[in-house]
Amino acid sequence: MSNAAYGRLKARFTRIGAINEAAGILHWDASAMMPEGGAHARGEQLAALAGVAHEMLVDPRTAEDLAAAAAEGEWDAANLALMKRAHARATALSLDLVEAMSRANSACEMVWREAKRDADFAKVAKLLTEVVALQREAAQALGARLGMDPYDALMDGYQPGVTAADVEPVFAAYEAWLAAALPRAEEIQARRPAPLPIAGQFDVPAQRALCREMAGRVGLEFSHARLDESLHPFCGGNPSDVRITTFYDTANPAKALLGVLHETGHAMYERHLPAGFARQPVGEAAGMAAHESQSLIVEMQACRSDAFLAFLGPRLRDALGVTPEAAAPANLARLWRRVERGFIRVDADELTYPAHVILRFRLERALIGGALQVADLPGAWNEALGKMLGIVPPDDAQGCLQDIHWHDGAFGYFPAYTLGAMAAAQLMAAIRRAIPELDAQLARGDLGAMMRWLNLHVHGQGARLGFQDLLRQATGKPLDPADFTAHLTARYLDG
Amino acid sequence: MSNAAYGRLKARFTRIGAINEAAGILHWDASAMMPEGGAHARGEQLAALAGVAHEMLVDPRTAEDLAAAAAEGEWDAANLALMKRAHARATALSLDLVEAMSRANSACEMVWREAKRDADFAKVAKLLTEVVALQREAAQALGARLGMDPYDALMDGYQPGVTAADVEPVFAAYEAWLAAALPRAEEIQARRPAPLPIAGQFDVPAQRALCREMAGRVGLEFSHARLDESLHPFCGGNPSDVRITTFYDTANPAKALLGVLHETGHAMYERHLPAGFARQPVGEAAGMAAHESQSLIVEMQACRSDAFLAFLGPRLRDALGVTPEAAAPANLARLWRRVERGFIRVDADELTYPAHVILRFRLERALIGGALQVADLPGAWNEALGKMLGIVPPDDAQGCLQDIHWHDGAFGYFPAYTLGAMAAAQLMAAIRRAIPELDAQLARGDLGAMMRWLNLHVHGQGARLGFQDLLRQATGKPLDPADFTAHLTARYLDG
Repeated sequence: MSNAAYGRLKARFTRIGAINEAAGILHWDASAMMPEGGAHARGEQLAALAGVAHEMLVDPRTAEDLAAAAAEGEWDAANLALMKRAHARATALSLDLVEAMSRANSACEMVWREAKRDADFAKVAKLLTEVVALQREAAQALGARLGMDPYDALMDGYQPGVTAADVEPVFAAYEAWLAAALPRAEEIQARRPAPLPIAGQFDVPAQRALCREMAGRVGLEFSHARLDESLHPFCGGNPSDVRITTFYDTANPAKALLGVLHETGHAMYERHLPAGFARQPVGEAAGMAAHESQSLIVEMQACRSDAFLAFLGPRLRDALGVTPEAAAPANLARLWRRVERGFIRVDADELTYPAHVILRFRLERALIGGALQVADLPGAWNEALGKMLGIVPPDDAQGCLQDIHWHDGAFGYFPAYTLGAMAAAQLMAAIRRAIPELDAQLARGDLGAMMRWLNLHVHGQGARLGFQDLLRQATGKPLDPADFTAHLTARYLDG
Repeated sequence: MSNAAYGRLKARFTRIGAINEAAGILHWDASAMMPEGGAHARGEQLAALAGVAHEMLVDPRTAEDLAAAAAEGEWDAANLALMKRAHARATALSLDLVEAMSRANSACEMVWREAKRDADFAKVAKLLTEVVALQREAAQALGARLGMDPYDALMDGYQPGVTAADVEPVFAAYEAWLAAALPRAEEIQARRPAPLPIAGQFDVPAQRALCREMAGRVGLEFSHARLDESLHPFCGGNPSDVRITTFYDTANPAKALLGVLHETGHAMYERHLPAGFARQPVGEAAGMAAHESQSLIVEMQACRSDAFLAFLGPRLRDALGVTPEAAAPANLARLWRRVERGFIRVDADELTYPAHVILRFRLERALIGGALQVADLPGAWNEALGKMLGIVPPDDAQGCLQDIHWHDGAFGYFPAYTLGAMAAAQLMAAIRRAIPELDAQLARGDLGAMMRWLNLHVHGQGARLGFQDLLRQATGKPLDPADFTAHLTARYLDG
């Protein structure tokens, strides 16, 4: 039975949620609007909001109410369990450790920018060693509190419900599959004509208008959303006021367009979270892998499909003046689905992207577990990339210094990218079973039926289910990478 | 001697200040950026921030520390006194009263919009009666706590250091002066040629560029500021990140331009508040009248002067394509300094504006004191306007329903407009004594010396001094309306 203690907890989490929403808008503003001179004050504002939200969570009254609370029904029971998890995570770490991590992460991130610029790992090695040591300490404390392996406790902070033991065999199988698939995909690609680039200058207003149109096609309502510009595109804001950003390159309109479609996938998840549990833990998204599945199902599964490209090509001609040859759907497919072994994760194609993630997952797990020392990271990185993709970075800027992750204290996040890509393929396979006419819809630029399915089976579920249960309920099975390799086979190996 | 209790208070007020800054950005965002669908969530966010800041202020530990605190030096002593005042104001009202006011104000404001639209005072009379009753109760509680007359306690919430007893003789003298000056100004104006309107269509990008240029001339640095659009122009943000807004009318570029100059005056105050006391009470502006003096000294005193118009005219020609005849400085002077008896305060000229304020000051004082009942407000309003300007509003929409103030629970604010106008004239007279070449500078569009004087004598003083002491230190005397009437005489009666 729901009781008074649970009622007080809901009120407290509503307030914490509102403060976190305020911080979300301030983060968006800092990236999209704030004059540079406002940065220091913004830091003070965000620190105050984070401090207040943390104190409300670790307040002794929260623990008392959690001990006494009872919640009725599946949603409220899940909500109470998530409250307990949030409280356990927040109280597992001493204030000293939290502050030490915050200082070490900031110091390391700042020096990392120089180290990356100079391709000089030695510059950041000592600070990164400190970051890793503190992460190990935090992972152990969190693991002890949550009854988890330390690395799993870090992963749990980004994507609850998936462990390294779940991930490793999936990744190993993908590695083995890729070893055969990649040369074959390259061979097929080499037999096809080279793609024509989209050449010319494309002014920002026209690009923006097309991006808004396409986001609208996916289902984004601009009465509850904004599209702005920032250096690093992201999706922020809150469910009734989603803020997505992009970056316009006048020489390459595909960057903003595909980026906006990606962020719109994230935005649609936020928009359709269960409104009845707004600002409650169970009303949030189910984790970062679940979130990435929604951006990738829109960008990669739907919008880079042959069917959607048949719709998009003419729009590129009409809205941006792209030449008919470059805008031909078959050319767009060759251009936007090109496979290439590269050093940089964020530039990687769909096929090789998981290799970058698998490498990082294994290295960060070894760093946290103590089997790998920071000093040995560059060598281990280069060896692993050589083994998986047959290429070795010419320097560490294109190797272990390329990502901000780790240098800012984010360990356990990387698997979410590939778990998301796999989940996207699995969900799309289920959608194709449920909507046999999907390709005909996509060819008309109509994502309505697909998005309604996702609203029902993913977005509207909030955080009620863990990642595996969410997939099980939506698709009839837990994470199954076979749908992802089947998708890649059809798209890249069906030559 | 400063002690540990004062140190804890400073830390607490820093956090309260940071939370209030966060709320300031969210208010700006709600007016300038937010999609309409975000309104409900924004209300939740702002309520949570206001609640948290209020709880920190009324926390028993704040009272304990205030009792034990000692502060050394003039600034810290003033800061501690302002902390005590903020705490006294926050604790003087019961939570029940605060919530009742919030509900009554919201309900009244909403119905007021309809009542104004329909020019039907009866619609809102009952709700306004409730608002006034609660304001009386609050005024009495605040007055008892602060040792002030109840109405003064409300004024103190907007402009500390000025009482109704200070204001009434100043206003009475102005009323008497205006009775002779207004017909004379009208007579002089009637003998001059009618102003040519600025005719044409002026696109928003060109207007925006000119507004930015002029704000820059005043001294606003866009590395610490933004200029955006909102329905009701305002200045928000915080000292290192000021956000001003305007509204562009393509048929009338003067609206945005003069509005931006006004808001830039506010922005310059914020920008130059003492940074060493950022987020402390003494680091804030000295009150709303002081703030209004800064917008009016820029807009009215400097930028509508003959000297500055000689600079601005050619820029209107070159930047906007205004005809030479309309952009002639003498025409701009006739156009932008036109005296006209009207019903609407916000449209009033410099000469008659105080009449609108004096009327409201007397009526709100009588409402709070109990000498006037809400039912009698429309009649009292019309009678007072008739007596002062010789005109009677055709309906209450152009009478007592025109302002949002009162209907949203703001009592005691109105005097700040005219105190600000008078202080602006007094400060400008002091600046002219200190900088004899001011007009030559303004004629070059150079406000540098003037703004440096204001930075030193007003902005940088924060809230260390009350309104009267601020004027005394800057100009050698407390508020003296003779400088204002001398300014008006020179500008309007020197025919």
